[in-house]
Amino acid sequence: MATSSPPSPLQVLAEFSFERILSQDARSKTAAILGSSNKVPTILHLERLPLDGIELAAVSSRLEGPRLTDSNDIYAWLLADLVPSPTHPSLKIYSISPATEAHIKKYSTQKRALVRETPEVYARIVDPFVRGQDPGRIQWVYNILMGKKEVDRVVFKDGDEVKGFVLLPDSKWDGKNVETLYLQTIVNDRSIRSLRDLRAKHLPLLKNIRDKILTVVPSKFPDVSAHELRLYIHYQPSYYHLHVHVTNLSFESPGQQVGQAHLLDDVIDNIEVIDRDYYAKRTLVYALGTESPLFGRLVAEGGEGVLCAASG
Amino acid sequence: MATSSPPSPLQVLAEFSFERILSQDARSKTAAILGSSNKVPTILHLERLPLDGIELAAVSSRLEGPRLTDSNDIYAWLLADLVPSPTHPSLKIYSISPATEAHIKKYSTQKRALVRETPEVYARIVDPFVRGQDPGRIQWVYNILMGKKEVDRVVFKDGDEVKGFVLLPDSKWDGKNVETLYLQTIVNDRSIRSLRDLRAKHLPLLKNIRDKILTVVPSKFPDVSAHELRLYIHYQPSYYHLHVHVTNLSFESPGQQVGQAHLLDDVIDNIEVIDRDYYAKRTLVYALGTESPLFGRLVAEGGEGVLCAASG
Repeated sequence: MATSSPPSPLQVLAEFSFERILSQDARSKTAAILGSSNKVPTILHLERLPLDGIELAAVSSRLEGPRLTDSNDIYAWLLADLVPSPTHPSLKIYSISPATEAHIKKYSTQKRALVRETPEVYARIVDPFVRGQDPGRIQWVYNILMGKKEVDRVVFKDGDEVKGFVLLPDSKWDGKNVETLYLQTIVNDRSIRSLRDLRAKHLPLLKNIRDKILTVVPSKFPDVSAHELRLYIHYQPSYYHLHVHVTNLSFESPGQQVGQAHLLDDVIDNIEVIDRDYYAKRTLVYALGTESPLFGRLVAEGGEGVLCAASG
Repeated sequence: MATSSPPSPLQVLAEFSFERILSQDARSKTAAILGSSNKVPTILHLERLPLDGIELAAVSSRLEGPRLTDSNDIYAWLLADLVPSPTHPSLKIYSISPATEAHIKKYSTQKRALVRETPEVYARIVDPFVRGQDPGRIQWVYNILMGKKEVDRVVFKDGDEVKGFVLLPDSKWDGKNVETLYLQTIVNDRSIRSLRDLRAKHLPLLKNIRDKILTVVPSKFPDVSAHELRLYIHYQPSYYHLHVHVTNLSFESPGQQVGQAHLLDDVIDNIEVIDRDYYAKRTLVYALGTESPLFGRLVAEGGEGVLCAASG
C-alpha cells in the first residue's frame, strides 16, 4: 500500500477487530479492550454513560422489555433496556491507535499487593530508591513553583520559603464542577520528599496549608464549605516532592483509600500530640502494583518479609 | 375499586410516573428516582450493567451510530450506542413499592460533613451517645456469637473468650466471586465497642485476628493471597461491637476511605510501637451524614467547633 493519510478515528472504530480484554471494572462500568484496526494495535476504552436527568424523567416511556428476576414483599429486582436515543448515547469510547506496549500495559489490570514498610525497610530499600529518582522527573514541579509554567492555573500562592505553597487544579479536574473539585497543593520547601520525612519542625508548614486551604477554597468556590474538604497526602506518592490533595468530600476516588491516603489532620495530630518522630517510627502498610519499580526493589532486596502475611 | 391483589412488579413499573431524582452517581452509573405507581409512592433504583465479556468480544458488530467528539494525534474520544440484545440488557432495576418515608430518606443524597472528635468531645458527647444505644440493636451480633443464627454461614470460629472471633460473609457479598470477597470478623469480647476503646491489653486479640484471617482466608479461598487482603475497622462503625472488615484488595468500596477505615495493621502498630494509649489521645477526623443522630448530637452539644475548619 502506498503512503496515505492515517485512517480517521471513525474508520479505526469501524475496522476494529477484537483480540482480548485488558481490564474490566464492574463498579464504574468501564472496560479496556485490545484489538487491531488497519493492522495496527488499537485500544478501545469503553465506559457506560451516567444516567442522565432527562433520561430519568422520561424513564417510564423509555424502558423496553422489562423482566422480573426476583421479588420479596414490596421489593423487586428487574432487568430492562433503556431505549437508545440520538441525544442520550449509551457509551463513551476513548480510542488509542496505534497503541504501543506502554499503552497496553497502562490499560491492563495490574495485580496489587499490600506491603509492610518498617523503618528498617525504609532506610535500607525505599530511601535509596527515592534518592535514586531522576531529578528531571520533578522539573515540572519546580517550573510551577518558580512561576515558569501553568501560571494562569494557580488558584492561590503563599510565597514563604518554609511555610509556603502553590495551590492549583489537579489535571483530572475539569475546573468547573465543584461536586468533583480536585486541587493540588505543592509546597515550596524542596527538602520534603514524602510523608516519611515529616517531623515536628514541619508543623508550621502543615498547619499553614490546612488553615489557608480551609479558608481560601470556600472563598473561591462558595458551593463548598471547609467541612466538606478532604485534605490528604499519598504514601507512596506518585512523585517525591511533598504535595497535598484537596477534594470535595462527596467526590470519591480510589486514591482516597486507607493505606494510600493519610488525612492532613491525622498527620498533624500524630506529630503534634502523639510523637514528634511518629513518621520515623511507624511501619507503613500500602498497596503497590506488582509491576511497579518500587515493588520490584522491595521484593528483590527485602524478600517475602515485605509482603503482608501472618506473623505467627 | 374493590380490594384486589397488589399489582405485580411489572405492573408497578409499567404504571410508574416520575416525580423527582433522589440521588445520582456518575461514577457507578446509578440513580434512584421517586415516583408513583397505582397512586402509591414508588422508588426505582437504576444501575447500568457492567460491560460483559461477550459484549466486548462482539463490540465491533454491536456499536451503532458512533460520532467523534474530539481527537488528538493517536487519541480519540467518541460516543456510540451499544445495541440492546435480549441476552445483554442495559439496566438493572430495583423497585420498592409502596415506599415509606424511611425508604425515601435512605435513597436520597445526604450531605456529609467532616468532624474533629477530640478526646474531650469523645468523653463528653460520643461516649454517652454510644452508651445510650438500645442493646437490642446488637442482639443479632450476640445471636451469631452464641451460634443461634447464621450458623451455616460461619467461615471460621475461634472460641477463645478474650482472643476469639467469628468470621462470616458480609451481607453485601454474593459468597462466590472472590474478586469482590467481603467478610466480617465479629469479636467474642463484648466489652469493646469501637476503635476508641482499643488499648495495649487488646493486642493479643488484634494480632490473633490478623494472623488467623491471613492464614484461614487464603486456605478457604485459594484465589486470594494474604497480601491481597485488606483488613480494616470503621470509625464511626455502623454498630458498637468491635468488628473487622476483610475485603479483596482489588474490590474498592466507599467504606475503605481514609477517615472512615483504619487498617488493622496500623491499629496494631500505633498501640504496640507508638503509644499504648494511642486511641485515647488522638483527635479522630471522620465524615458523618448530616442527618445522622450522632451528627445532630455533636453539633447540638459540641457546637461549630466539631466541624473541620481553619484553626487560625
